[in-house]
Amino acid sequence: LASQSTEATVVLRENGKMREKSLTMDTLNPQVKAVEYAVRGPIVTKAGDIERGLQQGQKHPFTEVIKANIGDSHAMGQKPITFLRQVVALCSFPELLDSSSFPEDAKQRARRILQGCGGQSLGSYSASQGVDCIRQDIAVYIEQRDKGVPADWDNIYLTTGASDGIVSILKMLVSGQGRSRSGVMIPIPQYPLYSAAISEMEAVQINYYLDEDNCWALDINELHRAYQAAKEHCHPRVICIINPGNPTGQVQSKKCIEEVLHFAYEENLFVMSDEVYQDNVYSPDCQFHSFKKVLYEMGPEYFNTVELASFHSTSKGYSGECGFRGGYMEVLNLDLEVKAQLVKLLSVRLCPPVSGQAAMDVIVNPPLPHEPSYLQFHKEKRAVLGALAEKAQMTEQILNTVPGIKCNPVQGAMYAFPRIFIPPRAVEEAMSLGISPDMMYCLRLLEETGICLVPGSGFGQREGTYHFRMTILPTTEKLKVLLEKLRDFHIKFLKEYASLEEPKR
Amino acid sequence: LASQSTEATVVLRENGKMREKSLTMDTLNPQVKAVEYAVRGPIVTKAGDIERGLQQGQKHPFTEVIKANIGDSHAMGQKPITFLRQVVALCSFPELLDSSSFPEDAKQRARRILQGCGGQSLGSYSASQGVDCIRQDIAVYIEQRDKGVPADWDNIYLTTGASDGIVSILKMLVSGQGRSRSGVMIPIPQYPLYSAAISEMEAVQINYYLDEDNCWALDINELHRAYQAAKEHCHPRVICIINPGNPTGQVQSKKCIEEVLHFAYEENLFVMSDEVYQDNVYSPDCQFHSFKKVLYEMGPEYFNTVELASFHSTSKGYSGECGFRGGYMEVLNLDLEVKAQLVKLLSVRLCPPVSGQAAMDVIVNPPLPHEPSYLQFHKEKRAVLGALAEKAQMTEQILNTVPGIKCNPVQGAMYAFPRIFIPPRAVEEAMSLGISPDMMYCLRLLEETGICLVPGSGFGQREGTYHFRMTILPTTEKLKVLLEKLRDFHIKFLKEYASLEEPKR
Repeated sequence: LASQSTEATVVLRENGKMREKSLTMDTLNPQVKAVEYAVRGPIVTKAGDIERGLQQGQKHPFTEVIKANIGDSHAMGQKPITFLRQVVALCSFPELLDSSSFPEDAKQRARRILQGCGGQSLGSYSASQGVDCIRQDIAVYIEQRDKGVPADWDNIYLTTGASDGIVSILKMLVSGQGRSRSGVMIPIPQYPLYSAAISEMEAVQINYYLDEDNCWALDINELHRAYQAAKEHCHPRVICIINPGNPTGQVQSKKCIEEVLHFAYEENLFVMSDEVYQDNVYSPDCQFHSFKKVLYEMGPEYFNTVELASFHSTSKGYSGECGFRGGYMEVLNLDLEVKAQLVKLLSVRLCPPVSGQAAMDVIVNPPLPHEPSYLQFHKEKRAVLGALAEKAQMTEQILNTVPGIKCNPVQGAMYAFPRIFIPPRAVEEAMSLGISPDMMYCLRLLEETGICLVPGSGFGQREGTYHFRMTILPTTEKLKVLLEKLRDFHIKFLKEYASLEEPKR
Repeated sequence: LASQSTEATVVLRENGKMREKSLTMDTLNPQVKAVEYAVRGPIVTKAGDIERGLQQGQKHPFTEVIKANIGDSHAMGQKPITFLRQVVALCSFPELLDSSSFPEDAKQRARRILQGCGGQSLGSYSASQGVDCIRQDIAVYIEQRDKGVPADWDNIYLTTGASDGIVSILKMLVSGQGRSRSGVMIPIPQYPLYSAAISEMEAVQINYYLDEDNCWALDINELHRAYQAAKEHCHPRVICIINPGNPTGQVQSKKCIEEVLHFAYEENLFVMSDEVYQDNVYSPDCQFHSFKKVLYEMGPEYFNTVELASFHSTSKGYSGECGFRGGYMEVLNLDLEVKAQLVKLLSVRLCPPVSGQAAMDVIVNPPLPHEPSYLQFHKEKRAVLGALAEKAQMTEQILNTVPGIKCNPVQGAMYAFPRIFIPPRAVEEAMSLGISPDMMYCLRLLEETGICLVPGSGFGQREGTYHFRMTILPTTEKLKVLLEKLRDFHIKFLKEYASLEEPKR
């Protein structure tokens, strides 16, 4: 009882009185306790332990851990885009503006960004919404992307990665108690930032299921079902869409987006469209349609009314600059007073990292055909996106050769989310261990092969189905090794737990 | 009613049904509405408007706006520390590692940081706690700062500026309902991040007043008073201290820190010590004592039990790198399970900006005497801190020559928080306008002189007293102009509202 250890929650003071810890699992904010975030969950912790063990000479049935758990391109060997890094380096150390080893277009970008910074320094706070000229560049970019649909830089907010923007908008929307508590519609499977933020804010999570049998398409009837059911116990106020999909890799059709927007219009829902993978479309049959452009094409009655926030990031696309924590959001039709409240909320955290803003600026303002860095920039961009497209196809193909694994086409984003057949005996064993069957599967996979994936249960899936999420980011050679090891593991796993039942394809 | 304007909250659909906005002032999260953040409040917005007006040729009784509202060093002309920017540039564009124009010690730092990054790229996510080797460097720095008090890098977490760490720790600590709701003790005057976070989390704010008549010292009796009073209606769980003080500029004595820690020990309080100004001590009679070192010197019964989180940042000190959003926190005696929960909470936001982490690394790991950048680094550091010390003294001296203004010594940090006498007739006028008297004062000051300060009411002050916060960051020449204009304005203001009463000194 009277221990001095930091692990004891109660110690005896010299005066004989008890000193309890202020912060224990019992007194911890229950909303924090409720948060789950599988992308960096127990599997990843274990992978780190194994990696350290390997370095210290521990024996494992493999020589390296292959991390396919997180969309972290550079960690998997993708090289930074030279032009982007040149601009950031110039902004960071402006003496380089005099160096002849930097191209003029990179210098021009850096000068423009620094002009927009207080004291012409990346070290100044920017306005909470971000540097003005970067917001202007983003608006121009969006107009071009959306073939002339007007974009007002007053509606652009730089963010600390897309996550920060998503959490800020959700925070605005959560209110009410009991049956009038805000409900947030999210796809299942989803990216667990959404469920984590909803838990933390004690909002109501409303699941709408994507249609696995139809390439993870969003089914409007399912939206209606989920909405009607939720209305019984909460106030649905916002619908979140991830397009291209994370973890599911699908690209939404224009028709589907129209249906979602019509639904949001009819039901007074705020639309949050997570479009961080807008540059990651691989399937020749698919095309990225921004929610904003589709809304515009539906006519002014829609375009002037539906409240929409769209999110983008430096972390994905062809640049993969996760560490810079750059991103932006564009908001449409936000009430003016609410907008002032949003700025106030953002201002408490002062501003997004300015070097991340600079990185964002390069992504929306890349070299033009007449500029010196144009050729190299496009060569690098094409190389990244080409390799990703190739790996997307290879992943789907190899996975679909494995009995008991079924993988939808990876149309976009950076992930496959295949369905895996887990034999009933393995399901029983997992249940008896108190873990989800796909968690057991992924743990065994990690221990036996060194491959680190995230169980489907971390993203949500239909009851009784099992999946994992894997990134397509390892190099082509490593990805091939990964997929082959995975195939062998899966076949062995099926055999080990074989029962009379046939594995389903 | 059937307007198409984005400002209308209700529109008529084509089918004749009403479409309401989802997000209005009525449906906005009330906790967001309750947030106040004066440092970027209405005065600052107005200053921006005036600045734009000046650029467009509007006439004002001045030619430039002088912003002394925010601790934004570079925006006020302070130059970045060369060595820090060299390291960040090298990390951003590693091809520069081959350039002969960068010193070897900067290259060595950059190589070490990149070694710690996935794929050796600043563009990878780091672990949620930050890059391992940077955490290790921080632990070494803390041990040196605290003359050998042990620091474990497992207790170090990189953050997105200090604000992010402060909000994360507070979030862990907030729980309970009604009388068992968590209470957070904060100094008054305070830095409004605290009150904003407390509002947002619906915790209970417990004010303890700093002693203005005693150089804004923290009075232990006042702590007891505030605590006992608060216990009646909430569960006080945490005490926040800002040392050196923001907005008040005092530096706490070792004795005072001991008293606070003893109090926290006795009352089972979690201690949050905001020490972002630890390098900003100007008064020769004052010295920075970290809460951790003082706790250590109180003996193992204290050092092994009191839960302490200490915060630091790249934004202040001599580097003033606000835009990089770098920072760290060190936690002591955190329950191990709670620690895992903290990591989980941080992991939802993935990681702090890696370039900010790199900047933090340079601050804790500056050039050593035998290294090539040593002399220049120390020359630059001394120049910044020397100028700040000079401006701290000048600010206090000039302000104290003005009748009706009384300014405590600016012992540390970057701010003066002088008390201003506002004549009763002016107070009445402000009340009739529905604004606080110091807000009216600062608005008039801005309109008449172009000087942008923050009213004391944004930080909290004893009822019936009025203050403003001003930074000491403008260049010496500009600061002198500012102080003289302020003096003239104040004298004119007193005259204008003169009554029979004498202004108090």
